[in-house]
Amino acid sequence: MCVWPTRPCAFGPAQATASYLNIPNVLAAIESSGADAVHPGYGFMSENADFAQAVVDAGAVWVGPAAQAIRDMGDKVSARRSAKAADVNTVPGSAGELTDPDEAVAVAAEIGFPLAIKASAGGGGRGIRIVEQESDLVGAIKTAKAEARAAFGSDAVYIERFIPRARHIEVQVFGDGVRAVHLGMRDCSVQRRRQKVVEEAGQLFVTPEVGQRMCDAAVRLAEAVQYQGAGTVEFLYDEQRNDYYFLEMNTRIQVEHPVTEMVFGEDLVAEQLRVASGQPLSFVQENLVPRGHAIEIRLNAENADMNFLPSPGTLEKFALPGGPFVRLDSGVITGSVISPYYDSMLAKIIVWGATRDIARARMLRALGELEVEGIVTTAPFVETILRSAEFASGAFHTTWLERWMADRAEAGAA
Amino acid sequence: MCVWPTRPCAFGPAQATASYLNIPNVLAAIESSGADAVHPGYGFMSENADFAQAVVDAGAVWVGPAAQAIRDMGDKVSARRSAKAADVNTVPGSAGELTDPDEAVAVAAEIGFPLAIKASAGGGGRGIRIVEQESDLVGAIKTAKAEARAAFGSDAVYIERFIPRARHIEVQVFGDGVRAVHLGMRDCSVQRRRQKVVEEAGQLFVTPEVGQRMCDAAVRLAEAVQYQGAGTVEFLYDEQRNDYYFLEMNTRIQVEHPVTEMVFGEDLVAEQLRVASGQPLSFVQENLVPRGHAIEIRLNAENADMNFLPSPGTLEKFALPGGPFVRLDSGVITGSVISPYYDSMLAKIIVWGATRDIARARMLRALGELEVEGIVTTAPFVETILRSAEFASGAFHTTWLERWMADRAEAGAA
Repeated sequence: MCVWPTRPCAFGPAQATASYLNIPNVLAAIESSGADAVHPGYGFMSENADFAQAVVDAGAVWVGPAAQAIRDMGDKVSARRSAKAADVNTVPGSAGELTDPDEAVAVAAEIGFPLAIKASAGGGGRGIRIVEQESDLVGAIKTAKAEARAAFGSDAVYIERFIPRARHIEVQVFGDGVRAVHLGMRDCSVQRRRQKVVEEAGQLFVTPEVGQRMCDAAVRLAEAVQYQGAGTVEFLYDEQRNDYYFLEMNTRIQVEHPVTEMVFGEDLVAEQLRVASGQPLSFVQENLVPRGHAIEIRLNAENADMNFLPSPGTLEKFALPGGPFVRLDSGVITGSVISPYYDSMLAKIIVWGATRDIARARMLRALGELEVEGIVTTAPFVETILRSAEFASGAFHTTWLERWMADRAEAGAA
Repeated sequence: MCVWPTRPCAFGPAQATASYLNIPNVLAAIESSGADAVHPGYGFMSENADFAQAVVDAGAVWVGPAAQAIRDMGDKVSARRSAKAADVNTVPGSAGELTDPDEAVAVAAEIGFPLAIKASAGGGGRGIRIVEQESDLVGAIKTAKAEARAAFGSDAVYIERFIPRARHIEVQVFGDGVRAVHLGMRDCSVQRRRQKVVEEAGQLFVTPEVGQRMCDAAVRLAEAVQYQGAGTVEFLYDEQRNDYYFLEMNTRIQVEHPVTEMVFGEDLVAEQLRVASGQPLSFVQENLVPRGHAIEIRLNAENADMNFLPSPGTLEKFALPGGPFVRLDSGVITGSVISPYYDSMLAKIIVWGATRDIARARMLRALGELEVEGIVTTAPFVETILRSAEFASGAFHTTWLERWMADRAEAGAA
């Protein structure tokens, strides 16, 4: 099986809509490469069911679940339906898409405030609106529908109980259409604007009992939809109630998959290729034994002191850290030119340690070795997070980081 | 504890004898750094007992065993004596330094030919002469003594049975002066001019029973000499006889320690610092559980096609591989100038895999990603070794590589 792309590749004009998001253009690039399979990575069209179908129709292998599975699990309303059918806890909320305001009022009375209005086609934290009180509800739904139509091309929205101070816990699953396994959880609660900043696997702040229930639920869901390939089932973990709620499923490999690889000693992308080439899953649940703790940080070309302004330019120097239990995922080197057109991520730095404390110390050591000249990165910002008492002790949740940043900015200004 | 050096440091003139091998100069560099401890690494004076003593006399902590232990185990004759006292198999040979030719003839009659004449002060494969028949013995000893005096400043030599087609197997030990543990074995049989080219840990070609005996023997020896810190006990493994012989002990961390770290999930240098700062060993034998297989290759600035001629110059491009289970130990980047004065090693690339086959495939993938411009490296040479049927199947021993290279050269010329 020859897989496209084998290396970072560039084609088409700078505007993604005319290049990497344009299905005919991408198909042409694939065809001229001579490849017979496509790995969509985790950006752009990796969760685009139409693209997946187009690849298959063009005679190539799609390294991922079938287009129908992407559609079913990518749509939040149908994903919630599948979850409920598989006896997976969901956040209390509307049964499906909201069609009229009266229904919204009735559901809200049942689940209480605060609640969240979510776009069915949203994701990655986009398309969410929090409503604090009943009087704001009907207006907020109107606004949310208009925003959803503009952003995602569909105005379907639904409502859910909003759980403050929750952790974002996700379960890595793998299926071959017949059976499925899990590779434990990741904590991705350290978020800024609902984008993950630090991700962890191994020794998480989840009770073993609820952790096991989440992993079992994720496998149940994957098997119920005869899932093929790598997927991530995202949950909210409510520490107060010691309970979990299904959020959504990502039908692709995730940016943060390396922390799982380091803890389980398995290569997830290699397994994706095996499954895509028609082999049964090589993973057996009882052989998947976690070891230690792994932490990933995203090194972005952004200036955290200037509200994360992108910092394109030439990498005059780019010396990455090395040594024991440090993994580097990057495609740039000294001399590379960072374009302003795409995602600002320069590299992922992942470390492993026998314990979470060792892994945290190792990441700080690694960041101390990093040398970047020519552009500004988020390394100092990430280092500050890692050194915080809250991160060290695990006292964080999905809305912690932004509040903490605001408090620090205020304290600095005072 | 503040340890010197914290980063690669440069001082003194290019000639090592006037800089890195000059004890007063190095002590001055340490003093001006303000550090209170010295980590000698694995080059230059890392096994120099006088330097170790000078560091301690200057009031700093020496990260390594006491000067006396370096002296005792560094000298091959006294090391053999310690090994025998600890009931560790040694290669049949002279009881100690050879003083007269008649003794040599008598010992040779007992152990048989071929035999090896070795310089007591030699090491790393230097100072060894093979004698095939009795008529060459007396002359060879004279030559060996003269060479030893010129090379090492001492003409002490001893003789040993020469074991053809043996594997070089070494055991990683760690002690705190009271107790010692082992962290398994490494196979370093792939050697050129007795210098290690590829090193492995994990799933080795040694029977479990003899492997266990070697590990136990190494711990026994370390405890017998109240060893402090990291050390390596080197053995010859005789596959035909399924037996082992003690070779020598290295009283420092080794170049190839990363393969052990990857397999055991422990940071050996961190443990060196703990033990040097007076803490007891944190390692407990029953918690040291190996997992999978690791391979290290040394990337040298040498041209294998021109008899390994050094290739100094400027690294116009230096893009190291990354991704899952790839570790990089390097101190150079794009733009670095490689001097002709010191060791030609640019980087060590270490990979881990659940099995030896996966690790081997991963190293080939990593080497495929490597991009070096401006100087010539040994990457193609190492890749050829890794692709060979002999390396893949494990059919190699310490003298395999040079014979294989000669055969290939002949076949190419024919």
